[in-house]
Amino acid sequence: MSASPALVYDWNALDAAGRDAVLARPVQAVAQRTRDAVAGLLADVQARGDVALREVTARFDGVQLETFEVGEQEFAAAQAAVPVELREAMQQAADRIEAFHRAGVAQPYAVETAPGVVCERMIRPIARVGLYVPAGSAPLPSTALMLGVPARLAGCREVVLCTPPRRDGSADPAVLVAAQLTGVRRVFKLGGAQAIAAMAFGTDSVPKCDKLFGPGNSYVTEAKQQVAQAGAAAIDMPAGPSEVLVIADAGADAAFVAADLLSQAEHGPDSQVLLLSDDDALIARVQDELATQLARLDRADIAQQALSASRLVKVATLDDAFAISNRYAPEHLILALREPRAWLEKVEAAGSVFLGDFTPEALGDYCSGTNHVLPTAGAARAYSGVSVSSFQNFVSVQSASRAGIAAIGDCALTLARAEGLGAHAHAVALRLRKAAA
Amino acid sequence: MSASPALVYDWNALDAAGRDAVLARPVQAVAQRTRDAVAGLLADVQARGDVALREVTARFDGVQLETFEVGEQEFAAAQAAVPVELREAMQQAADRIEAFHRAGVAQPYAVETAPGVVCERMIRPIARVGLYVPAGSAPLPSTALMLGVPARLAGCREVVLCTPPRRDGSADPAVLVAAQLTGVRRVFKLGGAQAIAAMAFGTDSVPKCDKLFGPGNSYVTEAKQQVAQAGAAAIDMPAGPSEVLVIADAGADAAFVAADLLSQAEHGPDSQVLLLSDDDALIARVQDELATQLARLDRADIAQQALSASRLVKVATLDDAFAISNRYAPEHLILALREPRAWLEKVEAAGSVFLGDFTPEALGDYCSGTNHVLPTAGAARAYSGVSVSSFQNFVSVQSASRAGIAAIGDCALTLARAEGLGAHAHAVALRLRKAAA
Repeated sequence: MSASPALVYDWNALDAAGRDAVLARPVQAVAQRTRDAVAGLLADVQARGDVALREVTARFDGVQLETFEVGEQEFAAAQAAVPVELREAMQQAADRIEAFHRAGVAQPYAVETAPGVVCERMIRPIARVGLYVPAGSAPLPSTALMLGVPARLAGCREVVLCTPPRRDGSADPAVLVAAQLTGVRRVFKLGGAQAIAAMAFGTDSVPKCDKLFGPGNSYVTEAKQQVAQAGAAAIDMPAGPSEVLVIADAGADAAFVAADLLSQAEHGPDSQVLLLSDDDALIARVQDELATQLARLDRADIAQQALSASRLVKVATLDDAFAISNRYAPEHLILALREPRAWLEKVEAAGSVFLGDFTPEALGDYCSGTNHVLPTAGAARAYSGVSVSSFQNFVSVQSASRAGIAAIGDCALTLARAEGLGAHAHAVALRLRKAAA
Repeated sequence: MSASPALVYDWNALDAAGRDAVLARPVQAVAQRTRDAVAGLLADVQARGDVALREVTARFDGVQLETFEVGEQEFAAAQAAVPVELREAMQQAADRIEAFHRAGVAQPYAVETAPGVVCERMIRPIARVGLYVPAGSAPLPSTALMLGVPARLAGCREVVLCTPPRRDGSADPAVLVAAQLTGVRRVFKLGGAQAIAAMAFGTDSVPKCDKLFGPGNSYVTEAKQQVAQAGAAAIDMPAGPSEVLVIADAGADAAFVAADLLSQAEHGPDSQVLLLSDDDALIARVQDELATQLARLDRADIAQQALSASRLVKVATLDDAFAISNRYAPEHLILALREPRAWLEKVEAAGSVFLGDFTPEALGDYCSGTNHVLPTAGAARAYSGVSVSSFQNFVSVQSASRAGIAAIGDCALTLARAEGLGAHAHAVALRLRKAAA
């Protein structure tokens, strides 16, 4: 038995409560104190605008900023500061993200639903969108790519990006380069709930946005929920800590599986990691590998904490594993299986799926082309990851000729009368009379 | 000057504050008392399930129900009770709704983003969905069609529909017939916030749902917001009172325009109605028509109240009208113009658009084929109406071969290292080594 820090369970030995416990995510109940603090901050930014932003930024980021917006000079300095290798990697990643997202862009269409009645769907970019790129333990230029590329493909008129300032008052250069690379021109050095407030309500310096995107810590998440609830701005999706579920068979490479579990665990102490396998020997090998690889990690402390809440679960069959996965609805689902594609049809709910031994989650996090802004905490049961359509409005259009209203007007009349809506019926009847005239 | 109950404004004579006021929607601030009452009710249903549902239904609907689910006998009675003409009208409407929605169904796709790297989008039905069909001033079988048809097209495994019971303990027969017509088999006689609670949390008799759909009064809306906020269930969109904006030119038929304004106004006293026109004479004629038609309406009281908060606005040009409309982002937008299609490209944000004199909003409410569950209260800036995709999850999938990881692995390594995520880099490096071996 190794010193693996993750707990091992046998699914078939568990009762219903035990199964619930194994699949329970770490409790993310937002403390009332956090909720109140965020509400207070939002109200303050709404009332006092940039003045409030300056005070809050001094308090939380430890820097006094007169101007939040990144200027030409700082963009130029960032371009000079970022190593060529990183700039090229970002460009390649952006190109693949664009290739994948562009291929999925929805098309307008029209249908004649009755003679003289044409119904259509138009697609319009959301006019003003706000992107949040966190920089907690490390800045995340990849998130700027994941949000900036689909915003550009959608054609949004105004794209605003907020990212926290560093102690010296500058923004992370790699994030700036990533933003420029996707065509984002307006970057503001604002972090946390105050960034969300600024984009949701608008201030003298930050434009008000219609929809806000991006991950963040619990304050950012709570702020997004509150502005959405208040109707100030729409948001991409609810967010929680990152998570991965791996389904592995006897032939899986234990070192690969352990590395994937650890790369999720290093995100944060509240990251959740699950392994389901029908093979005891594989689980034992993964335990050994976890202990060995963990010792070598720079972020071993974080990963160790995350692993302590994580589970390696023995299942009787791979069918059981898929049933459990669908119930859990993981953000990331890795199929470390010999015939992963054959199993794909079993997947009902997941954010993003990784097939086979040579597709680590890190590929999707950075550069396969798929989006890494994905539903967490079981939201994958009813939410999808960010795509171009997240930045678009779908507007329906209908047009009836005289022949059209003659064809379907009676149908509308009958339904309007059944629902007791006389003015609806009258609006139709007036046209029917004129069309017949 | 007629006795028109709607106020007339000249846009160019208004200052910024005056313009804001003209476009302001009736305040929908939810009273803290409503919020607390809904929170208490949700907690009660979550804790006590069907027992709580029985008590609440007795209190609010005035009927003691042992069983909420509609059985075979009640369905059969409904089929017998609904007139043939209404059943046929519902069938025709459902057929056109299906034709329009089916044509817009998204397709899965796959792209090779690099040699050996395939990225895909799979589409899955949301497993368990809950539809709410209100029956406040009148039951709305049309809403059952608007939600049931796309749920069926998406292929949702479990579709639950809740609608309030009548005093005698039965459900509205037309709603039952509409539900059956779209393939919905599980109908529960539950209304208001208690219906939302039942579907979000599940009880012994009502299945827990992943996503909830449909309009409702302020209690239903608040309940949907609260269960979404708590992560218990996703919801289709935030909701507010229904609204219409009409853009009319000098050639518009004033009787038609007035009839359309009134058919929106009769929905409820808080409905909002706006007319924008570049022609004073048309506005004057519409005023006269409003007064004349209002007097004849069954629901004149409701319409009169709604009209008192509504505005007829003179604009200098139709271009101005479209700029105002985009700022307002109406749920329904009627283009009572001589060349409506030529103006369509100006529309940036709206729920559903109605082109020309012979396309009253009532057609879209019932039977043109488009959906009538649409974003209100300006949400059309960033939300779209219900479609088949509202009932689906879009799951991304990636698959890299050895050649694939060799092609993009270095890109991932560079980005992972730049973000300080060593375990991500390690998971890629392990594969690169083995792929090269």
